[in-house]
Amino acid sequence: MHVVFSPEREDPGNDLVARHDIPKVVGGCGPAASELAAAMYSAIFHTVVPVSTPAVAEMTKLLENIYRCVNIALVNELKPLCMRMGIDIYEVIDAAKTKPFGFHAFYPGPGLGGHCIPIDPFYLSSKAKEFDFRTRFIELAGEINTAMPYFVLDRIGSALNERSKAIKGSKVLVLGLAYKRDIDDLRESPSLTVIELQREKGAVVSYNDPYFPSVGRGRQYDLNMISAPLDDLAQFDAVVIVTDHSTYDYRAIVEQSQLVVDTRNATKGIQSPKIARC
Amino acid sequence: MHVVFSPEREDPGNDLVARHDIPKVVGGCGPAASELAAAMYSAIFHTVVPVSTPAVAEMTKLLENIYRCVNIALVNELKPLCMRMGIDIYEVIDAAKTKPFGFHAFYPGPGLGGHCIPIDPFYLSSKAKEFDFRTRFIELAGEINTAMPYFVLDRIGSALNERSKAIKGSKVLVLGLAYKRDIDDLRESPSLTVIELQREKGAVVSYNDPYFPSVGRGRQYDLNMISAPLDDLAQFDAVVIVTDHSTYDYRAIVEQSQLVVDTRNATKGIQSPKIARC
Repeated sequence: MHVVFSPEREDPGNDLVARHDIPKVVGGCGPAASELAAAMYSAIFHTVVPVSTPAVAEMTKLLENIYRCVNIALVNELKPLCMRMGIDIYEVIDAAKTKPFGFHAFYPGPGLGGHCIPIDPFYLSSKAKEFDFRTRFIELAGEINTAMPYFVLDRIGSALNERSKAIKGSKVLVLGLAYKRDIDDLRESPSLTVIELQREKGAVVSYNDPYFPSVGRGRQYDLNMISAPLDDLAQFDAVVIVTDHSTYDYRAIVEQSQLVVDTRNATKGIQSPKIARC
Repeated sequence: MHVVFSPEREDPGNDLVARHDIPKVVGGCGPAASELAAAMYSAIFHTVVPVSTPAVAEMTKLLENIYRCVNIALVNELKPLCMRMGIDIYEVIDAAKTKPFGFHAFYPGPGLGGHCIPIDPFYLSSKAKEFDFRTRFIELAGEINTAMPYFVLDRIGSALNERSKAIKGSKVLVLGLAYKRDIDDLRESPSLTVIELQREKGAVVSYNDPYFPSVGRGRQYDLNMISAPLDDLAQFDAVVIVTDHSTYDYRAIVEQSQLVVDTRNATKGIQSPKIARC
């Protein structure tokens, strides 16, 4: 019997790279295992990347996810600083990504979601303790990313406050439940925390997501809600863009709403005093 | 009079991108200033990227450098963990960089060097304090990257110790003074700290660098040394690769040395009990 490990490599919603064009990392217990696995996966994947052990294969996946988790946290940390300095971080990122080498754009948002990035890095943090080692970047990234829904709540509160309203009793529509644009995946989605935090403060929260006509109860949530129609946005004290699905007409949403809190830069290019960007 | 700011965008030693192909970010005090600057720079650069203010232009440069500083620190943090776990982090990075999206490879090393990455991020840390804001990623990155020469010293001490030698009195050759491969720039180079730390411990330190036949006194160093020839490597208790210049014949260096401490994975693919990788 042979044992190999080959980690998942996914980018949900990315249609630019076909599954079989994603190189497949395999690490076997011994060369024979690696060779067998490579032969098997070669039938599906154009490129197989053999590594020396299952541990190296797992660490590869972890590094890929830690890289994303840390870089998202980095821009999430810089976002509030830029806001205080009167600088639009999205303008900064768009300018930086014109650099033809040595830069990779990440964007701030309402928090991490999905089944990998918010979770996997902490497998390593946990394992590291057995080696008397503290993974400080992972811990800091976790702390900052986990705090983002609280930051969004704070921005909703500020924007309502400017209109002399409290969160308590305000009607709020959360746009987008999925953790990422144009997908129907709710796992670890920050929208769930954004909804929960607003409810705790006394807001009357609705949601809209074309990918979720209704949402019941899951491991992380107990919503029992139906996706609200978008035909009467003026009734809401605030509309909060948590997921920037591409099917939304953001210009129309801004026009019809009293207040739009935008956590995704979805309203880029739209000038309106109704928009509170965060 | 008009005022604009346009940050430097450099990659010393990178001959793949011509200077005029690096898009030029310009931020003017007012649209007229930006337009004038864009017109002027268009005579030199193929692409000019106008941003709304000088502050955005400066933050663009800072983000580019912070991104590098943080990502280098991230792999520098993971390197000792991988070593304890018996995993070759370079194998992990090489496997991870086969991912066709969402990953950008950075490599661990003996510490940061150059006139930008080790310095610029702290301009923002300092400025952030005026806004009651702490840039924790930059601080953590600084702490980890600054500690790397101490980590190298520790590895030299361990490797000598395995051979029942102390650092004190050992003859050590530092290979490479420049902060980066194939360039003649000494600014903020970690090799300077590596040399200093070894001397403090009582090592007799020499160096070799084809780009620096001799080195005198600078703001950060007072060496007054001459580049040692490579014709008698066996005389050194340890040869420490700090800068992986491509002119070095690493196989010959390993063959002729008693012990090689490799901080750059320059001896990749060479199997020898003389090599201590770090």
